Amino acid sequence: MNPQDLPRILPHVSVDCVIFGFHENQLKVLLLRWKVSQRWSLPGGRVFRDEDVDAAAQRVLRERTGLHELFLQQFHTFGSAKRLDHPDFKKGIEQLGFASPALELLVDRTVSVGYYALVEYSQVQPMADALTEECRWWDIEAVPADLLLDHFEIVQLALQHLRRQLHYQPVGLNLLPEYFTMPELQRLYETVLGQKLDRANFQKRMLAQDVLLRTGERRMGGAHKAPFLYKFDLEKYREALANGGNAAW
Amino acid sequence: MNPQDLPRILPHVSVDCVIFGFHENQLKVLLLRWKVSQRWSLPGGRVFRDEDVDAAAQRVLRERTGLHELFLQQFHTFGSAKRLDHPDFKKGIEQLGFASPALELLVDRTVSVGYYALVEYSQVQPMADALTEECRWWDIEAVPADLLLDHFEIVQLALQHLRRQLHYQPVGLNLLPEYFTMPELQRLYETVLGQKLDRANFQKRMLAQDVLLRTGERRMGGAHKAPFLYKFDLEKYREALANGGNAAW
Repeated sequence: MNPQDLPRILPHVSVDCVIFGFHENQLKVLLLRWKVSQRWSLPGGRVFRDEDVDAAAQRVLRERTGLHELFLQQFHTFGSAKRLDHPDFKKGIEQLGFASPALELLVDRTVSVGYYALVEYSQVQPMADALTEECRWWDIEAVPADLLLDHFEIVQLALQHLRRQLHYQPVGLNLLPEYFTMPELQRLYETVLGQKLDRANFQKRMLAQDVLLRTGERRMGGAHKAPFLYKFDLEKYREALANGGNAAW
Repeated sequence: MNPQDLPRILPHVSVDCVIFGFHENQLKVLLLRWKVSQRWSLPGGRVFRDEDVDAAAQRVLRERTGLHELFLQQFHTFGSAKRLDHPDFKKGIEQLGFASPALELLVDRTVSVGYYALVEYSQVQPMADALTEECRWWDIEAVPADLLLDHFEIVQLALQHLRRQLHYQPVGLNLLPEYFTMPELQRLYETVLGQKLDRANFQKRMLAQDVLLRTGERRMGGAHKAPFLYKFDLEKYREALANGGNAAW
């Protein structure tokens, strides 16, 4: 938060971003540690008066992760009237050193629009901001339940939406290597869902999505029968993203 | 909008509701006709300073439909910086007769949180509000593309979300009679999806959801072989709503 940005801020609206990282079959989430209270929180920020809310989310993400043009999925807006009523939040804002009326603007009631993204963990350079002193990945199972404000609830709901997304949209592009096996794709789904899946059912569902191309090549070197290599049919993948999975009926 | 409510209004945030009605295999949506411009629009309204956004949506719906405790699904927040920049919107607000600064508050940039619900059409008593002079159901295919502001986009996105919901959550409770046949359930899905479904696949998917009880009774009187009557297993139905369809893997 820069002092020169204060007059640009749209009151009562903010964005919060849940950045899921996938790497070697582990799901992680990016958190920042606040000064003063030392509480962990989500990357987030204010919306400018002349800025679309989606663009504000992209800006916040760029500032925290270095990633441009990230595919951010808006999933829920957190609109409880009392959600900012917590002393740790107030203390954190106060250490920025703004006087009235800027201080009142920043701690007044704010409705926060939540976004999530699923990224290749190793592409991200976590960066703290003016409110925070550390930014790092947490394994999803290890996220502290006492995150700042309602941020733990925001993480849980983002995870629910990410899991639902697997029912109607393909995932995997930019998370798996260009060529991958069906077991590798299955491990990605299992990691996100947090549960084991039946191998035959999984293969059937994935092939029914009609976004995979079997290359005819096989992955060599394993102890088991070498599995076929697949890649995404990019045109069909993008079509499936656009039509919201209606074709799957 | 009552003058005494003006000091209670939280600036920059509103709600819009897409109420889908289902009746005899037709999907409809509830629209209001604005005074002055005669444009059709969604039921919507402002959020009060001490009111949760979800509660504001419930209040708006109660006022427009007479329905209490409606299951409203929040689906997307519309945050374009320019979304209220339309003369028909301004003219409509001006006819309310408020002077500055109330007028400026009501036409200033507003982020709108979108909700949808699917209701039994015949339970609703449509009621116009201070901004509008008619409230009625439109067949989904007949909704005018020139709805007020971004409301056509809001309807389209709500429909996409409602369709996605069929992938991971059961629907039908309060829309179908207590006892129904598989073909009747299939027609509900086909109506929402706007497409014909394969009978055998549909039955298999529905039974896999594990929310149906086959009663052993059959629907008599048709020309075809009498189909079995089903009803929802309410406990499993509510479980499936709560777990977001993860069991379907």
